[in-house]
Amino acid sequence: MKHKLEVCLSPALLHLYDTNNCNVVIIDIFRATSTITAALHNGAACVIPVATVEECIAIGNQTPNSITAGERDGKVATGLAYGNSPFEYPADFINGKTLVLTTTNGTKLLHMVKGASNIIIGSFLNLDAVIDFLKKDDKPVILGCAAWKDRFNLEDTLLAGAMAASLSQMGVKVADDATRAAIRLWNQAKTDVAGFLSDANHVQRFQSMHAESDLDVCLKIDTSKKVVYYVGGELVTERP
Amino acid sequence: MKHKLEVCLSPALLHLYDTNNCNVVIIDIFRATSTITAALHNGAACVIPVATVEECIAIGNQTPNSITAGERDGKVATGLAYGNSPFEYPADFINGKTLVLTTTNGTKLLHMVKGASNIIIGSFLNLDAVIDFLKKDDKPVILGCAAWKDRFNLEDTLLAGAMAASLSQMGVKVADDATRAAIRLWNQAKTDVAGFLSDANHVQRFQSMHAESDLDVCLKIDTSKKVVYYVGGELVTERP
Repeated sequence: MKHKLEVCLSPALLHLYDTNNCNVVIIDIFRATSTITAALHNGAACVIPVATVEECIAIGNQTPNSITAGERDGKVATGLAYGNSPFEYPADFINGKTLVLTTTNGTKLLHMVKGASNIIIGSFLNLDAVIDFLKKDDKPVILGCAAWKDRFNLEDTLLAGAMAASLSQMGVKVADDATRAAIRLWNQAKTDVAGFLSDANHVQRFQSMHAESDLDVCLKIDTSKKVVYYVGGELVTERP
Repeated sequence: MKHKLEVCLSPALLHLYDTNNCNVVIIDIFRATSTITAALHNGAACVIPVATVEECIAIGNQTPNSITAGERDGKVATGLAYGNSPFEYPADFINGKTLVLTTTNGTKLLHMVKGASNIIIGSFLNLDAVIDFLKKDDKPVILGCAAWKDRFNLEDTLLAGAMAASLSQMGVKVADDATRAAIRLWNQAKTDVAGFLSDANHVQRFQSMHAESDLDVCLKIDTSKKVVYYVGGELVTERP
């Protein structure tokens, strides 16, 4: 790999990066990008990510065989049918359906990226598949952390670090200090990721929502070989 | 210490923090806050931080017994007399003088902070003095990293981590993931800070400027017992 690699730690820093002709990975592991990956792995026809509950309802109404999903403050949002947990989308439920999903941090970042060669979705669930794609489609890489209301978070940074550590071993040029920090945090965390994250803000939020089991499933590594591409407003597993 | 502690990793994220009635520490160790601390430790009457070369010249002209200093692209800026290195301000030169200093990242952040109880300057040179001040003057603390053109940098984050690690042991409430990341990076780095920073972007810049000796002096810990306060546009060692 001959190109450079950068990590953007928050959507509020994205303007500092030139995403033109790059491969950009969107990372929002608790829980948007993990849930999207799980639903598509389990056979969803596509996932349509939207910013608001209103859009979610409107697109759901127009789309045959679709379900609407999304949470606000840890509960299924009024007017929607399902939530943000990967557990809600097993194959016998989601296969062949279109999932119209509203999330905040991840969708915001997804919609902000301009001019990229490819926008793909990153999660621990398909870590190796994403790395393999980035290796074969050798372009400058930007790993974009969705963060939490623009605030730095540990969990997205760790996944960026896991990806960066592998890519760095393949010869990619680590171009910024954010990537170096992410790699070093990952190296500290990798033998016990859940333990490393045990005091993180989002884990505290999970505990208050009694959603600890979601945490475990979002930290499972390489349960899917699918790469998820953002194409024409839809998330799909077939490259354009 | 009963209050909370947060770390702001870039001026571009400062709007996410409420600095009202907090103690805010400005961190720009390569080299603004280190040079400011060194000059005041060595007896400078005060340091006036300004954003532009033009302001620096104008204030220098109005101020008796002052010197003007600042660099652009690693060289003393046209119209100014001295540079940004701590080595340029020994006691036999700077004692009793006013240093009018233009820097970019650190000054920008300093001027952005609103409503704080105290704004102080942080460097490794006066690490213990800053921690001691924050312990005695027990208010919410925000450690503000000046970063590099709004980009995350390792060196400012490490100093924030060093401060946060000590304050955390004194019972301060670590309130965000940025603080947790800074502490963990510091714990990795503390036995060999220069080694940890050897591939950082700013260290590469120092090497291209042949200014490696500045790096060593900026990483010396506790060479000064002075706390530096920002009061009425001036940096001084007496608390208002």
